[in-house]
Amino acid sequence: MPQAARPAGMIAMSRSVAPAVLPPDLLFRLGETVRLVQDEAVESFDDDVSPVRLAEVEILVTGWSCPPLTERVLDAAPRLRAVVHAAGSVKAHVGPEVFARGIVVSSAADANAEPVVDFTVALVTLAGKRAFGMARGYAAGRYAEFGQRTGNDGRVIGVVGASRIGRRVIARFVAAGHRVLVADPHLDPVDAAGLGAELTELDELCRRCDVVTLHAPQLPETRHLIDERRLALLPDGAILVNTARGSLVDSEALARACATGRIDACLDVTDPEPLPAGHPLFALPNVWITPHLAGVQGSEVRRLGAYAVAEVERFVAGEPLLGAVRAEQLALLA
Amino acid sequence: MPQAARPAGMIAMSRSVAPAVLPPDLLFRLGETVRLVQDEAVESFDDDVSPVRLAEVEILVTGWSCPPLTERVLDAAPRLRAVVHAAGSVKAHVGPEVFARGIVVSSAADANAEPVVDFTVALVTLAGKRAFGMARGYAAGRYAEFGQRTGNDGRVIGVVGASRIGRRVIARFVAAGHRVLVADPHLDPVDAAGLGAELTELDELCRRCDVVTLHAPQLPETRHLIDERRLALLPDGAILVNTARGSLVDSEALARACATGRIDACLDVTDPEPLPAGHPLFALPNVWITPHLAGVQGSEVRRLGAYAVAEVERFVAGEPLLGAVRAEQLALLA
Repeated sequence: MPQAARPAGMIAMSRSVAPAVLPPDLLFRLGETVRLVQDEAVESFDDDVSPVRLAEVEILVTGWSCPPLTERVLDAAPRLRAVVHAAGSVKAHVGPEVFARGIVVSSAADANAEPVVDFTVALVTLAGKRAFGMARGYAAGRYAEFGQRTGNDGRVIGVVGASRIGRRVIARFVAAGHRVLVADPHLDPVDAAGLGAELTELDELCRRCDVVTLHAPQLPETRHLIDERRLALLPDGAILVNTARGSLVDSEALARACATGRIDACLDVTDPEPLPAGHPLFALPNVWITPHLAGVQGSEVRRLGAYAVAEVERFVAGEPLLGAVRAEQLALLA
Repeated sequence: MPQAARPAGMIAMSRSVAPAVLPPDLLFRLGETVRLVQDEAVESFDDDVSPVRLAEVEILVTGWSCPPLTERVLDAAPRLRAVVHAAGSVKAHVGPEVFARGIVVSSAADANAEPVVDFTVALVTLAGKRAFGMARGYAAGRYAEFGQRTGNDGRVIGVVGASRIGRRVIARFVAAGHRVLVADPHLDPVDAAGLGAELTELDELCRRCDVVTLHAPQLPETRHLIDERRLALLPDGAILVNTARGSLVDSEALARACATGRIDACLDVTDPEPLPAGHPLFALPNVWITPHLAGVQGSEVRRLGAYAVAEVERFVAGEPLLGAVRAEQLALLA
């Protein structure tokens, strides 16, 4: 593309993550499509960029820790046409005022999905054999005998939330031959059947499933979706997996339910997060807690940048965006 | 099939596992094809069965803890035509003397493969994010920061042994977009390419792979295949996964290598097994040890019986056996 035709672009995200999200090859590719008004990523629209440069910007590539796009920032960037987010949720920096100005918004949440699905399936596979508790017991001198062992066959899998991740999780378990139930107030039975799952109410899902895995967004109405009452509905030996958002589960109720040994849990997210040292959940042999690792990490972070650069290329070429976020979706997103 | 036409059959395996391997529906199906000379599974050919009945038996369905089919047992069962094993390795009870009498042998090792592959992939997925060590650290009050995090993208996977499980593991990682190297003295480069992997010598595999997963048989020549010297070849941050046989790895050398923090390990099998309480491997935060859970367990055990019953049906119908074991394979089997 000739120099003059390239729209002005800027990168706004934490400088500690920028090199992992946009390593040199991706930065070079981005520079072929947009004219970056400065090399350094912007962490503050007040301190890190001159008003003159901000006024030029047409495409903003955002990422983790991007400051909010307030009315004041938007006023200072009158030429802004697209916010392309090289991360999952745009909620922290994009509000209705962005959409009100006709600015196009894209998220790389799709690029985050596959690693979360892999992590979730891995947790279910190991937890289904009680591997986490058995590893602890083995280290303490107890080698599990035949009668204590459980398998993954015949388990009914309950997926809470037919989100982009939830749908992929359903697909994996259906492909592996499992019976899958799904609960989602925005899904209809025909769509559910198309996914290979049976649509149920959440209470019924809890009652019928051996594994319940959460893939719902963090919203006021999903706070403590899995509470004391619903935990009590789970059958004996059931496994709760949360790789979504900590607020979906009442941690104190979960600690009480798991302390009885009746159910097991794998938590990659918690409420609060980080979970304070010494929290009862840490001490339970049937609960395994990881520090929010399911999403893109380390070498996987590049997926976000690659997705965002491809979105910028599509935007500049006038093609539809694959990760387009619409104003009315904002309230339902994770 | 008319009563008279059914060949005489017998079940020989541990009575504690028999109901899981052959639950009532499978036992009923087996009884449609063979005339079981007694309902109870045989644990000893001397004590549990009369010589008259043993002399009738044409098809023996064996399983875990089946006593060895010695010359004396074979002499007592002159009509025996097929040994259909409802488990993986036939090595413990079938020797050359069985093949010498023209008896057909089948193994259900195929039925054991998929759960092992699932378990292996789960270990690699979690270990690739250092989830095991991070879970321990989190419980001790350390929430891992961004810079400490690793991802699965870009990892080169080394598969040692193109066994039935090794081949399936290769297929999974190739499908997930990983570069896969394979080492197997019985594989040629064309076969390897057909699997989507690059054939290398084991030393080179160790030098080039970020993950090394073992799927070789337990043989005198594979004992301590992964020894001090080969562990030293692994790159920093590499992960060793063993869901095959404990004897493949020198446990003491591994403990020393992991104690430096240079490499991580996930072990579902060890040498010796069980690993004695207090073994240094248990104390290492970067080593995760499970008590031989990868293969069929609990509800999965039924897969073995289902496979064996289908093999019996094929044998009686004169169809080729899918799990046929040939005499010359015996020395190379796991």
